[in-house]
Amino acid sequence: MNVSTDAKFSKRTDKIKRSPIRELLKLITKPEIISFAGGIPDPTLFPAYLIEEATKSILRNEPEKVLQYGPTEGDLRLKSELVSRLAKKDNIKINEDEILILTASQQGLDLIGKILIDSGDTVIVGLPSYLGGLGAFSSYGANFIGIPLDDDGMRVDIIEEKLKKLKKEEIKRVKFIYVIPDFQNPAGVTLSLERRKKLVEIAEHYDILILEDTPYRELRYWKKSIPPIFTLAPRGRVMALFTFSKIFCPGMRLGYVIGSEPVIDRIVLVKQSTDLCTPPFTQGILREMLKGGALDEHVKKLVSVYRDKREFMLNVLNKYMLPLNLPDLKWTRPDGGLFLWMTLPLYMDAERMLPRALEKKIAYVKGCAFHYDNSGKNTIRLNFSYPTMDAIEEGIRRLSQVIAEEKRK
Amino acid sequence: MNVSTDAKFSKRTDKIKRSPIRELLKLITKPEIISFAGGIPDPTLFPAYLIEEATKSILRNEPEKVLQYGPTEGDLRLKSELVSRLAKKDNIKINEDEILILTASQQGLDLIGKILIDSGDTVIVGLPSYLGGLGAFSSYGANFIGIPLDDDGMRVDIIEEKLKKLKKEEIKRVKFIYVIPDFQNPAGVTLSLERRKKLVEIAEHYDILILEDTPYRELRYWKKSIPPIFTLAPRGRVMALFTFSKIFCPGMRLGYVIGSEPVIDRIVLVKQSTDLCTPPFTQGILREMLKGGALDEHVKKLVSVYRDKREFMLNVLNKYMLPLNLPDLKWTRPDGGLFLWMTLPLYMDAERMLPRALEKKIAYVKGCAFHYDNSGKNTIRLNFSYPTMDAIEEGIRRLSQVIAEEKRK
Repeated sequence: MNVSTDAKFSKRTDKIKRSPIRELLKLITKPEIISFAGGIPDPTLFPAYLIEEATKSILRNEPEKVLQYGPTEGDLRLKSELVSRLAKKDNIKINEDEILILTASQQGLDLIGKILIDSGDTVIVGLPSYLGGLGAFSSYGANFIGIPLDDDGMRVDIIEEKLKKLKKEEIKRVKFIYVIPDFQNPAGVTLSLERRKKLVEIAEHYDILILEDTPYRELRYWKKSIPPIFTLAPRGRVMALFTFSKIFCPGMRLGYVIGSEPVIDRIVLVKQSTDLCTPPFTQGILREMLKGGALDEHVKKLVSVYRDKREFMLNVLNKYMLPLNLPDLKWTRPDGGLFLWMTLPLYMDAERMLPRALEKKIAYVKGCAFHYDNSGKNTIRLNFSYPTMDAIEEGIRRLSQVIAEEKRK
Repeated sequence: MNVSTDAKFSKRTDKIKRSPIRELLKLITKPEIISFAGGIPDPTLFPAYLIEEATKSILRNEPEKVLQYGPTEGDLRLKSELVSRLAKKDNIKINEDEILILTASQQGLDLIGKILIDSGDTVIVGLPSYLGGLGAFSSYGANFIGIPLDDDGMRVDIIEEKLKKLKKEEIKRVKFIYVIPDFQNPAGVTLSLERRKKLVEIAEHYDILILEDTPYRELRYWKKSIPPIFTLAPRGRVMALFTFSKIFCPGMRLGYVIGSEPVIDRIVLVKQSTDLCTPPFTQGILREMLKGGALDEHVKKLVSVYRDKREFMLNVLNKYMLPLNLPDLKWTRPDGGLFLWMTLPLYMDAERMLPRALEKKIAYVKGCAFHYDNSGKNTIRLNFSYPTMDAIEEGIRRLSQVIAEEKRK
């Protein structure tokens, strides 16, 4: 008998879409392609030597610990380092039972989806929003309410409007608001302090949790930082996700989540059957990097390089895009992070345009991938951390040609 | 308003039980406790120096690759190494699209559960069976059909009996048979060749998938190895899970799954939203360890040490348990792996006995934890890879005292 594999797959996975970013990244491994696609750190900046030293240190001093199974909650000494660092950097005051080490923050999105979402529950998300979040929540059967963004981030007033229209039973099924407050992925905009406060107010009023996902917070190039939503809300209202993919390296898959003890406890429960524990080996390396302050020094370097790249991309955008004379062509000016967000004239379609961009050996992510409802056809996400300055100039020049060819005569 | 966290948790996670092993491992970190509890490698054997060399090599030669994001499917060169190794070791013939690198095999149990199990579907499992598998499948709402084991492994004849009694619609919902054929965890028994063939026949007849989980296959101390079920079945019938936790180290969380392209493809889809990819950094280290044959040498060493420990534990069991004069007290004589399985007289309860064992500073896992229906109250899993020879003797001596105190006068 033939294996009827297709008939056996779970219904939940029939709905999952392939990540267009990850599929695109496979296509663009050729070195001649200039990629604005991934949310990828500059590979020339990886602190390889420091990692070698840190690895040597843990392998010589504690091989029996870092090569063994570890607690699901994460390495206690690493958690303590992070607790102090959070207090110092952002005045976030938690204890070691309110933090859990993750196999990068994508795992946090998955596990939070798993502990909170029953099929048919609702999550409030940005339009656009990080597609890895949308994918993780979808895989547990989430429905979405989409909230547009402007230059000050998510339109919190629209969240309130939408909630007002829901019935009591429907509100009960709104499990959380997913927000990326700092230099949002993909839009690059930052949620203002006023809106952060208002968001907390709404979440309190309707008793809805907030998931604050902040992978880029330390990569700020302009203006003063705004307090995390976590610090503006009463205990237990906010779960916050952090990753080391952008400020250290993605190749170790390290991140963490902070939240109330019941939430952390429930995540521990599901993490046990998901991967038992985040690798103690890589946790040990990270702990070494944090201990001596080496990671903080490294972040300073990243900020300085990425600040220049951002500035440079904004300059070449002016240089090549303004002559196109398209008044509806706009882009954001992010205060930090890795991306800026381009809006094309409404009649253009970034998905249809992509094959021609790839022909010209440039890549971007179509903006509709970040919209759960597949809207945003005329938007594009552009990454500036990965390409070199030369590649940024040449890539934007080519992109301007691609857009010029789309222009209505 | 207070946060009503408990009311928000998903129904699926209300059913999940905490892993009694992981909870126990937290209790027994004190060095004076002799632990037979974990499935834990001997930490004195970790190849720390080889890992240091491998790490140095990848960090110097390819930092921009191993510290960056990688493909969800896993590092292609590592996959090629594994494909050759499988062909050489076990005559398993697959191509690189039929293998996916995992954040250890626990992730495989989780992801296979996720792609196959809709709430209310059935999985056929051993009584007893690895509790991490039971936990992962439960978290997606699986029901279980339990099959007892004897010295030749799962009672395949009983699988057939049970399936015969099901209606056609019920059989459709039996998604797979979960089997640990080599030195089963926890029972230590090995599925005979005859039964492997019969199992494939049944799976073919009823069109049910087989999940072959074989973490200990390379740790064989006696007799000749038996072909993997994967090689005895037509293409697509079997998914097989492998881990490097026992033959390399658990602290890097590395494993892989092999199966038909549609299955691997669906796992890729869910892995994207689970953790994007297994750390390219640790995958690179493993690749280095495999390339030069260093890992194979290491496995030889493990086999030699664990063979002695197994033999020694069997000897001290005879020495301390036979004088108790309990004809119903039995234990298995595994041909490999990390565990042996003890059956106490029916009137004894290993769970009730555990606090007294802990008082005497020894730990084991109560057997009922490996039974989805909480049966097996009079059983115990004993690990022999972790403790030293001295600890094995002293620990078994103390265990014999604990059992003696339970003896009915």
